[in-house]
Amino acid sequence: MNRLLTLLLLCIFLENAVSQQKPNFIIMLMDDMGWGDLGVYGEPSKETPNLDWMASQGMLLPDFYSANPLCSPSRAALMSGRLPIRNGFYTTNDHARNAYTPQDIMGGIPSNEILLPENLQKLGYRSKIIGKWHLGQQPQYHPLVHGFDEWFGAPNCHFGPFDNKRTPNIPVYRDTDMIGRYYEDYLIDHKTGESNLTQIFIREATTFIEKQAAQKQPFFLYWAVDATHEPVYASRDFLGSSQRGLYGDAVRELDYGVGQILQKVKDLGLVNNTMTIFSSDNGGATYAKEMGGSNGPFLCGKQTTFEGGMREPTIAYWPGKIPAGVVSHQLGSLMDLYTTFTTLAGGSIPTDRVVDGIDLTQALFKQTIIDRPIFYYRGDELMAARWQQYKAHFWTWTNSQDEFDKGVNFCPGEEIDGVTTHEQVNNTAEPLLFHLGKDPGEKYMIKSTSVEYKGVMPQILKIVAEHRSQLVKGEPQLNMCDSSVMNWAPPGCEKINKCLPVPKSNPSKCVWVH
Amino acid sequence: MNRLLTLLLLCIFLENAVSQQKPNFIIMLMDDMGWGDLGVYGEPSKETPNLDWMASQGMLLPDFYSANPLCSPSRAALMSGRLPIRNGFYTTNDHARNAYTPQDIMGGIPSNEILLPENLQKLGYRSKIIGKWHLGQQPQYHPLVHGFDEWFGAPNCHFGPFDNKRTPNIPVYRDTDMIGRYYEDYLIDHKTGESNLTQIFIREATTFIEKQAAQKQPFFLYWAVDATHEPVYASRDFLGSSQRGLYGDAVRELDYGVGQILQKVKDLGLVNNTMTIFSSDNGGATYAKEMGGSNGPFLCGKQTTFEGGMREPTIAYWPGKIPAGVVSHQLGSLMDLYTTFTTLAGGSIPTDRVVDGIDLTQALFKQTIIDRPIFYYRGDELMAARWQQYKAHFWTWTNSQDEFDKGVNFCPGEEIDGVTTHEQVNNTAEPLLFHLGKDPGEKYMIKSTSVEYKGVMPQILKIVAEHRSQLVKGEPQLNMCDSSVMNWAPPGCEKINKCLPVPKSNPSKCVWVH
Ligand SMILES: [Ca+2]
Ligand SMILES: [Ca+2]
Repeated sequence: MNRLLTLLLLCIFLENAVSQQKPNFIIMLMDDMGWGDLGVYGEPSKETPNLDWMASQGMLLPDFYSANPLCSPSRAALMSGRLPIRNGFYTTNDHARNAYTPQDIMGGIPSNEILLPENLQKLGYRSKIIGKWHLGQQPQYHPLVHGFDEWFGAPNCHFGPFDNKRTPNIPVYRDTDMIGRYYEDYLIDHKTGESNLTQIFIREATTFIEKQAAQKQPFFLYWAVDATHEPVYASRDFLGSSQRGLYGDAVRELDYGVGQILQKVKDLGLVNNTMTIFSSDNGGATYAKEMGGSNGPFLCGKQTTFEGGMREPTIAYWPGKIPAGVVSHQLGSLMDLYTTFTTLAGGSIPTDRVVDGIDLTQALFKQTIIDRPIFYYRGDELMAARWQQYKAHFWTWTNSQDEFDKGVNFCPGEEIDGVTTHEQVNNTAEPLLFHLGKDPGEKYMIKSTSVEYKGVMPQILKIVAEHRSQLVKGEPQLNMCDSSVMNWAPPGCEKINKCLPVPKSNPSKCVWVH
Repeated sequence: MNRLLTLLLLCIFLENAVSQQKPNFIIMLMDDMGWGDLGVYGEPSKETPNLDWMASQGMLLPDFYSANPLCSPSRAALMSGRLPIRNGFYTTNDHARNAYTPQDIMGGIPSNEILLPENLQKLGYRSKIIGKWHLGQQPQYHPLVHGFDEWFGAPNCHFGPFDNKRTPNIPVYRDTDMIGRYYEDYLIDHKTGESNLTQIFIREATTFIEKQAAQKQPFFLYWAVDATHEPVYASRDFLGSSQRGLYGDAVRELDYGVGQILQKVKDLGLVNNTMTIFSSDNGGATYAKEMGGSNGPFLCGKQTTFEGGMREPTIAYWPGKIPAGVVSHQLGSLMDLYTTFTTLAGGSIPTDRVVDGIDLTQALFKQTIIDRPIFYYRGDELMAARWQQYKAHFWTWTNSQDEFDKGVNFCPGEEIDGVTTHEQVNNTAEPLLFHLGKDPGEKYMIKSTSVEYKGVMPQILKIVAEHRSQLVKGEPQLNMCDSSVMNWAPPGCEKINKCLPVPKSNPSKCVWVH
C-alpha cells in the first residue's frame, strides 16, 4: 500500500513536472497592421516602445509572411497550418478573387480541419481567443467547437452597417453565447474613433494569464485584436496621442497592450516558459489612405500579392530560448506557428494531409536558415512565389479598372508598368522576376534574357511544379452567401433580449469584386 | 621671480585643463545614403549592426534634414551653417535648378563665408576632412584655405569619365597637394565595384584620432566618405556580403567603418568627450534604381524637395551627455551642427549675417523640442516649407518631361497627381499641404477648403514671409563653367608627374538640366 501511494505520488509529481515544462504560447495577431507600422520596422514617428523593446529582447523576422492578403483566409491558414487553397478558405465564383467571411457567408472552417488549439487541447493546454475569429458566422464554425476553451470577441470585424436593419450588428461572445453587440453594448464612436475595446481585450488577456498561472495550467492565448482595422479606434487616454492621427493612436494603444501582457507574464514568473509571437494578418490597408497602416518600403498593401499585402511585422520573444536582439531572415509564415507550437508542446502534426507550416524551432533557437518557398495566393490562383531572395509573379492584378476609377486604390501613389496592373495579367509563360534584397519595392524587373533570370527561374518553376503536383484543393467555403445566416439571432440572444427576426433562407453565389 | 614662475605654470595648467575639456566632434557624412538605408530606420535586410548599436546608445533623429537635395549645396550649408541661397551655392541660370561643383565650375565656397573649421581653429581645435569636399575645384576653395588643418580626399566625386581626355581624372589630395588620381592611383573597378577606398578612409580617420589623443588636442573630424555615391564601391572583403547587392556591400563597409571609429574613440578614452553625428548629404539616388539608396516610406529622392530628397538618416552619439536609446522628433538640419559645435567649443556665432543653423544642445541633452521651420530650396527657389508636422509645397517639380522620357526618373514607381509633376508648377496662390505624421509619403493632400488647411496655412505663410523679408541672397557661385579650371594641373601635380596640359580659358554659363 505504501508502495502504491509512493508510485501514485510520483505519478502526480511527474505529471506536474511535465505539465510545468510545457511552454505557454501567445500569438498577438494584429488586424491590417503593416510591416512598416512599428518603430523597429522604420515607422518615422517611432511610437511603439514596447514592441521595439520586445524586438531588442527577442528576434526580429523581417521576412515573415501571412498566407493571404486578407483577414479570413490568413487566419484560417494560421489556425490550420495549411494554405487557404487546401483548407477551403477561398472562392471559385471568379478567378483569383479575394473572399472572406462577411455576415451572410454560409461556409466556415471545415470540421475536418485540425486546428492548432485542437492539437494543444489534446496535450492538456487551455486556449483562449480574444477578439476577432473570422472563420465563419454560424455556431458550428465557432472557436469552442474547434479547440478553444474560451472566447471573448466576435465572429466578424466591427465594421458596419450599424443599425440592425439590413444587417444585424455584430454580436460579441463570451464563450458559446453572445453577450452583446458592437455599437449597442460595445461602443465605437464613429466621429471621434473612441472605444475602450482594446482596454477590454487587454484585461481579458491578463486575467486569462493570471488564472492559468495560478493553476499551473499550460495555455495558448490568441490575442486577435482589431483596433487597426477600419473603423479604427482607440480609448480616450490614447486619442490624440500619436503624431500619426487616429491610426497611430490605435497602434500606440496596442503597443501599450503588448507591454501590459509581457509584463504580466514576467510578473507571474512565466517569462522563461512562454513563447510570444507578434504579427499581423495581412498588410496595411493602403486603400484607407491616412487611416490605414504603413507597409514601409514595400509595394501596395492588403488585398494584393505584392510584398505590401503579405509581409508582416513579426517579432518572436522567449527569453532564454530565442536569442535577444537578433534578426533572422528565415522565410517564415504564420502557418509555421501551427507546426512550431504543436511540436514544442510535444504533439504531432497530422500526416494524412499536407501541412504547409514548418517547424521553425531551429530558426528561432539556433538561427539556422531553413530553405523553403513562400506562395502568394489570391483566391484560387497562385499569383507568385518567393524562393530565397527571388520572387516570381505568375499573375499580376491590383483591382479592376472600373473599381479603380471609382477611387478604390490598393497602391496609392504607386504605379509600376506591367506590375500594378488593373487587368488580371497572365505572366505564366514568362513570369516577372524580382530580387527582393536589392529591390524590396518590386520596382525593377529582372530581364528575362539575363543570366540571372535564366539561372533562377527554373529553380522556382520546379518548386512550383512540386507544389502543384501535391495540391489537393479543399472544398471552397466562400462561394455561397445567404442573409438568413447573418447574426440575427445568435446563441444566447434570448438571454439578453437581443434576438432579431431571421429572414427566409435565400442562398446565392457571393459577389467578390477584387 | 618665483611668483612669476608659479603664475606661468598655473597658466599652462589652466590652458591644458580647458583644452582637455573642449569636446571633440566627429561628423560622419554619407553620400547619397537614404533615410531608409539603416536597419534602425527600417531597411529590411538589417545589415547595419554598428549604426543600430550607435542609435541604441545615442539619439535617433528621424526628422533631420539636409539643407539641399544635392551634394555641393548641402555640404556648403553644413560647413557655413547657412542656406545655399545665402552662401552662394546655387545658380540663377535657370529657375529652380539643382547645381553643384563639377570639374569645370568656376565658383566655390566664398572667402567671406566663415566655416565651422574656421570657428574651431580659432578655439584651438585641429580639424581634418577625409573624403569628398565638393565646395570648389580651384585651390582658393580648398579645405586648408577654409579652416581645416588636414585633408585626405578629393575636391569632387569619384565619378568619370576615367581617361584623362576631355576631363581629367579627379585628383586625390594630401593637405594642399595632389598625391594621385582616382582610377590611376586610387582604383575603383567598374565591373566588379571593387575598391579599397573606404578602408583607406577608415585608416585615415583612426590614425588622425590617435594622433590628437596622444597630444591631448581637441579635434574635429569630418569623415566625408562616398562609397554609396555612384559608381558605388566596396573592398574585396565586403563584395557580395550584402543581401542588397553592391549598394548594400558599400553600406556594410561604411557601417563597419563607423564601428571602427567609435571603437577607436572608446579605446583612447575619449568617448565621454566626443560628440559623433552620423548623417547623409542628401536622399538616396532613386534614379540609380537598385544601385541607389532607399528612402524608406518617403517620396522620391535626391534632386527633389520631397521628403525622400532631404530627410537624412541621422544619429547623435555622446555617452554621458546625450541620453541612450531615445528618439527626438526635433526638426533638425545639418546646418545646426555649425551652431551646436561652435557653441559647445566655446565659440560664438557670427552676428553680421543670418546663420540658419540653431543650437541643438537642449534638444540633444535635455530632449526639449525647439520650434523651428525647415526650408526646402531647389536652386534659387523656395519650393516648400515644413512647420511642425505640416509641409507646404509652393512649387512642385521632379524633372522635365523630356528628361523623364529619356529614362531619368527621380521617383521610380511613384506617381502622385499634381505632386510629382514634370513641369515646374507654381502653387504659391494655394500651396499644397501635407501632414507628415499621418502621411510621411506626401500622398494625401489636405483640402484647401478644410478647417485644418485654413488653420495651418496662415502660420506657414507667416514663417515664410519672415524668412523672405530677412533674405540676403549670396552671389551665385554655380553660374559659370570653364574647362580650364578643371583638375588638369592641380597643386603638387609636378612632384608626381601628373600634370596635364591646361586648355585655354573659355568661360560660359553652366547648363543645369534639373
Ligand atoms: Ca485583416
Ligand atoms: Ca550626395
